[in-house]
Amino acid sequence: MKKLINHPDNIIREQLEGMQLAHGDLIKVNYEPYYITRKEATPEGKVALVSGGGSGHEPMHGGFVGKGMLDAACPGEVFTSPTPDQMFEAAKAVDSGSGVLNIVKNYTGDVMNFEMAADMAMAEGIKVQNIIVDDDIAVKDSLYTAGRRGVGTTVLIEKICGGAAEDGYDLKKLSDLCKKVNRYGRSMGMALTSCITPANGSPSFEISDDEMEIGIGIHGEPGIERDKLKSVDEITEMMTNSILDDPAYHRVLKEWDAGKNQWVDVEVVDDPFKKGDQVIAFVNSMGGTPVSELYGVYRKMAHVLEKRGIKVVRNLIGPFITSLEMQGCSITLLKADDEILKYWDAPALTPALRKKM
Amino acid sequence: MKKLINHPDNIIREQLEGMQLAHGDLIKVNYEPYYITRKEATPEGKVALVSGGGSGHEPMHGGFVGKGMLDAACPGEVFTSPTPDQMFEAAKAVDSGSGVLNIVKNYTGDVMNFEMAADMAMAEGIKVQNIIVDDDIAVKDSLYTAGRRGVGTTVLIEKICGGAAEDGYDLKKLSDLCKKVNRYGRSMGMALTSCITPANGSPSFEISDDEMEIGIGIHGEPGIERDKLKSVDEITEMMTNSILDDPAYHRVLKEWDAGKNQWVDVEVVDDPFKKGDQVIAFVNSMGGTPVSELYGVYRKMAHVLEKRGIKVVRNLIGPFITSLEMQGCSITLLKADDEILKYWDAPALTPALRKKM
Repeated sequence: MKKLINHPDNIIREQLEGMQLAHGDLIKVNYEPYYITRKEATPEGKVALVSGGGSGHEPMHGGFVGKGMLDAACPGEVFTSPTPDQMFEAAKAVDSGSGVLNIVKNYTGDVMNFEMAADMAMAEGIKVQNIIVDDDIAVKDSLYTAGRRGVGTTVLIEKICGGAAEDGYDLKKLSDLCKKVNRYGRSMGMALTSCITPANGSPSFEISDDEMEIGIGIHGEPGIERDKLKSVDEITEMMTNSILDDPAYHRVLKEWDAGKNQWVDVEVVDDPFKKGDQVIAFVNSMGGTPVSELYGVYRKMAHVLEKRGIKVVRNLIGPFITSLEMQGCSITLLKADDEILKYWDAPALTPALRKKM
Repeated sequence: MKKLINHPDNIIREQLEGMQLAHGDLIKVNYEPYYITRKEATPEGKVALVSGGGSGHEPMHGGFVGKGMLDAACPGEVFTSPTPDQMFEAAKAVDSGSGVLNIVKNYTGDVMNFEMAADMAMAEGIKVQNIIVDDDIAVKDSLYTAGRRGVGTTVLIEKICGGAAEDGYDLKKLSDLCKKVNRYGRSMGMALTSCITPANGSPSFEISDDEMEIGIGIHGEPGIERDKLKSVDEITEMMTNSILDDPAYHRVLKEWDAGKNQWVDVEVVDDPFKKGDQVIAFVNSMGGTPVSELYGVYRKMAHVLEKRGIKVVRNLIGPFITSLEMQGCSITLLKADDEILKYWDAPALTPALRKKM
């Protein structure tokens, strides 16, 4: 296992200490339990945006805490959900009376724990809503999920909803925007290598020197298909077309109904992409792939989109939602309307993502 | 060879096409010969800042073209100097009459070619100065260098001199600042894995699963010492102390003497760090190491610096000067005075590095 670490038991704490030392002008780390908040308290009248999940996907989510994005992030152990206790304490720390929106990636542990944390916070009089992100078109159900996994769209949601929260959206309006971005976003990933979890010390899956894995998730879980390694043009064309050809996706997601005072099941349907759509295009490194190779992916993706009549109006390129040191990439396309573009372009100042301030 | 590429012969062109497609709002790619300029012409009265070198270190230098940093970057083939022709054409494209400052990393090919390009440009009446960056304390002379190699300080110089050029520094004053930053900056790198050049297809050096290489350069060239893999604390302590304990470094660097109208040899001496110094601390990924591990490095580095009475006043953490997909990191420390801090904090808007605009 080749990693720059001390003992595997201490890596989360030591990463958090490093972040505090490096970004003390923007964030504040709480150690018992672990959560990261902005340095300044949430202004009165502003909904607090909270996310979290297993570690190993850095800079997500801790790197997105700061003005214009998250108010708090809860890191679990590597590839393990944070506890309800962390989420509850974070909610109490950042609620200014206007409520808390939890952005939850669709993994069984995260969904369950964020629901428990919401119940605990609501019992103390904090308004809460949980919105589930499930944008990975590659697999339905996996080792970690019932339904589609939450991947790249999460980064875009945290930026866009962060901008809207800063602009005064109330909890209902912010939840609606968050759900819309999830409906409009679709992702697919692939890997050239596996990753190694520090506690385990061995690769999550074995893969030969001439193979690639299509449809991987962000936890080193294998994908839908093992194939001979192909050219970046072939890989990118396949991934981009898969996203564009993904049909209407029906599923039931839980949310809190404040009127009925209970969790309810809501049917959600994604519209497929169509000619003439404008998109934000996000080409992401899984951690071990350098940015030089991402530009090769971007190039072919742009050609495919142009041919299909889809216009890229904004982009994001780099390692933003990773799987430790895995080599590979993912593509996320998000249909962009005026509201989405307005808050994508809004100022942000976080350790990992910055926009004009 | 596991890379997201098409044919090795086309990767530079395809990366450049990807950059043009992604960042057409900021940059403009010229294909014959290859160079990248800002989208807008250099304003009258502003010295043009140019850099370049072998590809494989992305985002350096192309990712640093834009307001507040470079006016042009010339990419060579992977780990191969660009040609004098590229540098000459880039200089002509961005000179607004106030001259061109070439920032040259100390590799034999780059130094020779930038000198030839400067001669060609001066023959056409363009004022030029070449400043050599040689900040790597690990080795003196290598496969690619006579003297110390130019590494991490290059990124900081491009930001700081970019800010000063924007602020109206003339060629002489900008050259002096550039030389000062080089004298004040020192770096050291290490690798957990080798990298694979696309044309070659095999690792630049062999390294076992339980070994690390200390003092590597950015071309996959081996370092000063092969050792058993140690903890991040031990590695970081050794690297930080090596930088701080590096004695006064004497060498002779060539520069253009406009009065004498010829290239002259100038003796340059770096002052060692001392207690009470303020520094900009830069923890860099060699490409394959994720940011999560860099925070472990930053943490220990901050502890060592505090113990030695050195104060970190700014930092930069991430993959900015890489060696393809190599796993490993480098540390750069730059003594920071008011002039350096002023231009470190100045606005910048480039594909890879952004500051408050």
